Amino acid sequence: MNLHGKSLLAGVLGQPGVKTFRAMNPATAVALEPDFHEAAMEEVSRALEAAASAFATYRTCSGADRAKFLEKIATEIEALGDALLQRANAETGLPLARLTGERARTCGQLRLFAQVAREGSWVDARIDPALPDRQPLPRPDLRRMLLPLGPVVVFGSSNFPLAFSVAGGDTASALAAGCPVVVKAHRAHPGTAELVGGAVTRAVAACGLPAGVFSLVHGGGSTVGIAMVKHPAISAVGFTGSHTAGRALFDAAAARPHPIPVFAEMSSINPVFLFPGALRERGAAIAQGLLTSFTLGVGQFCTKPGIVFAVRGPETDAFMAKLGELVRAAPNATMLTSGIRDSFQENRAKITGVAGVQPLAAGAAVADAAKTEGQPSVATTTVKDFISHPALATEAFGPFVLVILADQLADFAAGAAALEGQLTATFHATAADSAGVRPLLAALEQKVGRVLLNGFPTGVEVCHAMNHGGPYPATTDVRFTSVGTAAMLRFARPVCYQALGEELLPEPLKNSNPLGLLRLVNGQPTRDPIS
Amino acid sequence: MNLHGKSLLAGVLGQPGVKTFRAMNPATAVALEPDFHEAAMEEVSRALEAAASAFATYRTCSGADRAKFLEKIATEIEALGDALLQRANAETGLPLARLTGERARTCGQLRLFAQVAREGSWVDARIDPALPDRQPLPRPDLRRMLLPLGPVVVFGSSNFPLAFSVAGGDTASALAAGCPVVVKAHRAHPGTAELVGGAVTRAVAACGLPAGVFSLVHGGGSTVGIAMVKHPAISAVGFTGSHTAGRALFDAAAARPHPIPVFAEMSSINPVFLFPGALRERGAAIAQGLLTSFTLGVGQFCTKPGIVFAVRGPETDAFMAKLGELVRAAPNATMLTSGIRDSFQENRAKITGVAGVQPLAAGAAVADAAKTEGQPSVATTTVKDFISHPALATEAFGPFVLVILADQLADFAAGAAALEGQLTATFHATAADSAGVRPLLAALEQKVGRVLLNGFPTGVEVCHAMNHGGPYPATTDVRFTSVGTAAMLRFARPVCYQALGEELLPEPLKNSNPLGLLRLVNGQPTRDPIS
Repeated sequence: MNLHGKSLLAGVLGQPGVKTFRAMNPATAVALEPDFHEAAMEEVSRALEAAASAFATYRTCSGADRAKFLEKIATEIEALGDALLQRANAETGLPLARLTGERARTCGQLRLFAQVAREGSWVDARIDPALPDRQPLPRPDLRRMLLPLGPVVVFGSSNFPLAFSVAGGDTASALAAGCPVVVKAHRAHPGTAELVGGAVTRAVAACGLPAGVFSLVHGGGSTVGIAMVKHPAISAVGFTGSHTAGRALFDAAAARPHPIPVFAEMSSINPVFLFPGALRERGAAIAQGLLTSFTLGVGQFCTKPGIVFAVRGPETDAFMAKLGELVRAAPNATMLTSGIRDSFQENRAKITGVAGVQPLAAGAAVADAAKTEGQPSVATTTVKDFISHPALATEAFGPFVLVILADQLADFAAGAAALEGQLTATFHATAADSAGVRPLLAALEQKVGRVLLNGFPTGVEVCHAMNHGGPYPATTDVRFTSVGTAAMLRFARPVCYQALGEELLPEPLKNSNPLGLLRLVNGQPTRDPIS
Repeated sequence: MNLHGKSLLAGVLGQPGVKTFRAMNPATAVALEPDFHEAAMEEVSRALEAAASAFATYRTCSGADRAKFLEKIATEIEALGDALLQRANAETGLPLARLTGERARTCGQLRLFAQVAREGSWVDARIDPALPDRQPLPRPDLRRMLLPLGPVVVFGSSNFPLAFSVAGGDTASALAAGCPVVVKAHRAHPGTAELVGGAVTRAVAACGLPAGVFSLVHGGGSTVGIAMVKHPAISAVGFTGSHTAGRALFDAAAARPHPIPVFAEMSSINPVFLFPGALRERGAAIAQGLLTSFTLGVGQFCTKPGIVFAVRGPETDAFMAKLGELVRAAPNATMLTSGIRDSFQENRAKITGVAGVQPLAAGAAVADAAKTEGQPSVATTTVKDFISHPALATEAFGPFVLVILADQLADFAAGAAALEGQLTATFHATAADSAGVRPLLAALEQKVGRVLLNGFPTGVEVCHAMNHGGPYPATTDVRFTSVGTAAMLRFARPVCYQALGEELLPEPLKNSNPLGLLRLVNGQPTRDPIS
């Protein structure tokens, strides 16, 4: 498949750029064809303005029309066939099987958001009809629903080149909510971005939507990104990546003359608490599950378990022995980019360099830098050291886990108290452990976005009940999820119509309830029309 | 009723302060007894830490318990009887009839939030049960609901000494959501604040809640306020007041190591568009309605209509003649504080000083500075001048309105395009005007939080469908309302529980649905238990 290497600006190819770059194949350290052209700032501005102009039309599209558009994007992505998977594999080193699954998730989530947009009740319609005879004052007719917020800038993530990139969760939820999207392509997979961007662009045209509903921008680093966030045409930002970059975007957005929300999903070490009963009952299985989880995707998941608490004792000794054995046998694998590999090694060294941290085990093979390999490893420390050395809470984004040993179960609470905001917290416990679980659960549900029992946090289900978020620094806005259907709520805002009358009211609020929505009428949920 | 003049810090009176201040009676310019003591910063910190500590308990209270607490606050406020109204009247100059109505609104909204908390479905419970046999991967059991965010700092407003102050909408919605509250009392009505704060404190004790659930702090100006917003114990901020103060709080919160949301409701000029058909049909009634609305509460409402667009023509001439006549006959009235009166006069002068602005009419009596009087007035300008002079969009918080004349109906769009974010926009139109209303409605619903037809924006109904909010600079967070039951959503965040099991799950998520909530199960709303 031929790649043109240009930005896709409201349906039009960008100009050849002054600066170009190439994707690298991390498995071979070879640069891939073709050159990608960085968009000039005036091209980026044009894309943002086209999004603002398209918003005037796109915001009024029905949920059914948005649904068709999202479904068409999914079909167009599938129609790219193996070429997409092969390019993504070459650019990321992720195996084809994983990318096949990720493509299914990407198209699945587009179709799930389509369902929610088509059904329509997500707009949270509320109607308090007029009470003309109320004393001392009549009540006017009041009706409220969520409307789309405006154009959204999405920064694709490196670690999900399909599911959290050009047509990933942020884009799908913004489009479903009625917001045009301008994607800043991740520089590690520009070809994958171009292919998916082409699919979205074709879907825009096929659905007869204004071209400005979607643009894809190739650009250099943070300067373009900050400029996009500061642009007056933009109403919100979706981002997945590092804390440093996410915070810079948040700060830029907060400092605007008119601040806008930034949904940055940034960093998490996803603590796991292993209770003695669980380790006694199935310590080997937990070791196996943990290995799978922290090496999945070469440890490059936001939800990778980075720290594991356990209480000293024979069951923990057996667990650690098993874990060590598994880690020594675990193969190296190609990481996404050499930069990510360098950061991983640096952050791991920052952790293992703290006095009192002991190596437990590492993969037997030496990691090959020419293949951008990450080597699985595990180290141990104590709760006391974890609390006194904040460096031990560094996120090492890659296949590494730190086991933190407690002298007694009560030390789990102190370890939990030392944690910053996280995406997830996990417990492995049996019924016998439940007295210890309850207080820890109460403490941790205040610090995390998702609590798991007897599972592992990697593998984020896309569904209605998912919450992928958490207190800062896990994200910049604890009130919202970036995965699952509630992600649409990030890109919407309420508007109230007072005494507007049936003819002028939007469909979701008309007396007849033509869309059959579940609405709150006088505070009671109902699909009945207003009589 | 004796006032002690101290802060109420988690149920304990504050210490005598180094600095004291008194309330002024704006109607007499006489200082009122007693001295109020500014809390020392260490006292403020103690209150904030007590709130954080109380949160551990209060967050686990059932909706029914929170409801009883809110209802008890309402009862305690009512039990203060006339003494509360008299003090509020002395401190604000607002008439007793208005204050009686405002007390009813305050207690009514406490009871409405109690209803919502007791019913419980507001937590937006979502359950996607396990699919153990799903291919290629099983789905774990996932359940999500909203939990309270954490301690909230509330800054009482000057213009609603009851309904948007110590036990007003921000406090009631935060408490209903499960968040302790620390109120910074407004310095213009410290005695009213003390009385209401005492009522809340008694309700805390009567309900057996931890004392830290509520504190009331008297303090000096912005230094204490900024320090409160920066305090690590705090999770969110509610504020109603000026743009300058609101933005300062927002900036301080955004610059925290861990940023927190600030819900600042700041400034709005609430445009009104008068269509020719409506003016022909009932121009005199509109003039009377406008006068009532812009002089209500001496023009000191966030939703006061500050600008009115009309198309030149005989019906507009007649309307202006009527409006002028009404304004000339309108009495002066006491404003809330001399500072607010000074700002009003300054901002009005800023508007009327722009070249091309013509006075239309003013109240016949001279405003008496010793009675802190505001004088009703109206001026006129043109759409062209309005667009070219941003100063004409200044909010003059008081009884003033600017009529903006258009040469033709099409100029309304240009006027609307020049507007910043607003709380409300109002249309007066007949069926004959509807072709002109539609495009303007589409433009304005993107700029405002509430759209009204043939009414006036003052008088914000407290109900489920209200939205009191809007794009910046009307508020700092367009995604939320500060009035109505949806205001609770500001102070909550989602948490997801994965495979937690019936015993550990919170009540709203248990299989049996013991609270009878409306929940989203597999994406379908139902009150049925999970079988």
